[in-house]
Amino acid sequence: MRIAIDAMGSDKGSQVFIKAISDFVNDYHDVEIFVFGNDQDLVSLKGKNRIKIINTTQVINMNDGLLSLRRKTDSSMNRMLDYLAANKVDGVLSAGSTAGLLTCALLKIKLITGIDRPCLIATIPASKDRYFQLLDMGANSECNPQNLMQFAILGKKYAEVIYHKKDPEIMLLNIGSESNKGDKLHKEAYELLKNNTSLNFKGNIEGRDIFSGNVDVVVTDGFSGNMTLKAMEGTAFFAFSELKHVVSSSFVRKLAGLILKKSLKNMKNNLDYSKYGGAFLIGFEQPIIKAHGSSNDFAIYNALIRLHTIIKNDTINLIKKELL
Amino acid sequence: MRIAIDAMGSDKGSQVFIKAISDFVNDYHDVEIFVFGNDQDLVSLKGKNRIKIINTTQVINMNDGLLSLRRKTDSSMNRMLDYLAANKVDGVLSAGSTAGLLTCALLKIKLITGIDRPCLIATIPASKDRYFQLLDMGANSECNPQNLMQFAILGKKYAEVIYHKKDPEIMLLNIGSESNKGDKLHKEAYELLKNNTSLNFKGNIEGRDIFSGNVDVVVTDGFSGNMTLKAMEGTAFFAFSELKHVVSSSFVRKLAGLILKKSLKNMKNNLDYSKYGGAFLIGFEQPIIKAHGSSNDFAIYNALIRLHTIIKNDTINLIKKELL
Repeated sequence: MRIAIDAMGSDKGSQVFIKAISDFVNDYHDVEIFVFGNDQDLVSLKGKNRIKIINTTQVINMNDGLLSLRRKTDSSMNRMLDYLAANKVDGVLSAGSTAGLLTCALLKIKLITGIDRPCLIATIPASKDRYFQLLDMGANSECNPQNLMQFAILGKKYAEVIYHKKDPEIMLLNIGSESNKGDKLHKEAYELLKNNTSLNFKGNIEGRDIFSGNVDVVVTDGFSGNMTLKAMEGTAFFAFSELKHVVSSSFVRKLAGLILKKSLKNMKNNLDYSKYGGAFLIGFEQPIIKAHGSSNDFAIYNALIRLHTIIKNDTINLIKKELL
Repeated sequence: MRIAIDAMGSDKGSQVFIKAISDFVNDYHDVEIFVFGNDQDLVSLKGKNRIKIINTTQVINMNDGLLSLRRKTDSSMNRMLDYLAANKVDGVLSAGSTAGLLTCALLKIKLITGIDRPCLIATIPASKDRYFQLLDMGANSECNPQNLMQFAILGKKYAEVIYHKKDPEIMLLNIGSESNKGDKLHKEAYELLKNNTSLNFKGNIEGRDIFSGNVDVVVTDGFSGNMTLKAMEGTAFFAFSELKHVVSSSFVRKLAGLILKKSLKNMKNNLDYSKYGGAFLIGFEQPIIKAHGSSNDFAIYNALIRLHTIIKNDTINLIKKELL
């Protein structure tokens, strides 16, 4: 299995990739890695078994417009996607600009027939040791009802292939559970989803209920999805800073904090979506993973495992079969 | 000060109002309360000093459409609003249907000149022992850029009058911090806010940063605001159920949990927005508070204090002066 990585454009610099890639290559013996970036930054990966460094001279950043994205032909992101387009690799990963990755990919990589827009899908832990898939997490800030319907189909298939869910329960993220709730987009999407008999559609769900462990796929437009994800991040971070405050406010509380330290840390990691294996840019004919810009090496490592699983399970071909 | 309460339509029944009203009347000697509802349910309030019960025979519920809202003239909600419209009371509170309250109020109560849509404003605790105002929390699922600009003005004035903030820092909730982020609505609203020199507008803010304690007023459309609020509720609830799981998973952890119990409970209440004093339906010429449908008696009591403060500070007249 051949994987390409864009090692530039992360908020934390190229260093987070060094350990992640080394560990990943040690743990997964079937992979060969192509790392795109400034080779001065990647010198400690040089000469390692099954790792190849391709020196690039440009970096895609947050402010690059369409013209600039096209012109930066020697950027790590574009070069990585060129390898994918030419089938020199089986999948790619970047922690760079989401908009940049989406646009460059749309220019180079084919969409699955029947899908108008790719979107970002992430797996979120919930109660009862269950997970749910949230999509679109922010690839499309403007969506139409048809897009949401296609997201539902992609999410369903992803839950089936990767999480072995039979007939996954799909719900529409909305501001009320009744069928007549929400804006025009969500009312129309509700009707489309309800009338699609191939989907196990269970109606609207509110943000306060998505962690209940009673839903497999939560469908939303990219604007609302991104809003929701960031509110989740903000609240989790705030809850833990408050908790930290509590367990440092007296001697006995400090002691209690020490006893709970390891469990609390596990719990924090579970709720920290930036550490959570990245999001799959679903809808393309080839696998593209977007890791969070602020990912640490552990998060990049998890994102690589996610990509490995997607490739190994032939996920995209299985999605395509469903859409035929 | 005369306050009217719609004691029907709460998810938890009329019982939550009994203790809240009794405590409130005991603690605030300047108030006289008019309670609207089925007098069979309110019998334990009967004959109490400064409490008057007005028996009503109908209840507004979640599914009532416009016609039904108009026809239910003897509903607790409509009767309460009639008292407000006739200046028989100085402010009102309901825990019933948000859409119902909004529609009935629009039929009976004047909007402040210059305001096209009322909206829901709530006060949320953040880091550094600070608070921020979030509006619209869900009154308007479809908004235009002008609406968001008016919400900013209302929020600014509310932060000034109630929280004594000088020149409150106002930010627009969006999916990125750069000025070009978001959908059409948010891009246009950004320009309007930026060009309004009477506002201390500081740009876009993402959900993950609203708890930072660095912003006074967060402006958003009702759909995104409600999405955000519910994601916050869901995450806080999930974090605490995980925490509960941790502190019951072994004997020493149980001990640690006991030590932290009181602090953790305080923290939970701080993060539980359903317990948080209700939201002010801002934009009307008279004060209307919407308490959360699942409010307990403590939450209703807090919402009554909020209403008392709004009336006492002559908040609406001060907002009106700003808009002249």
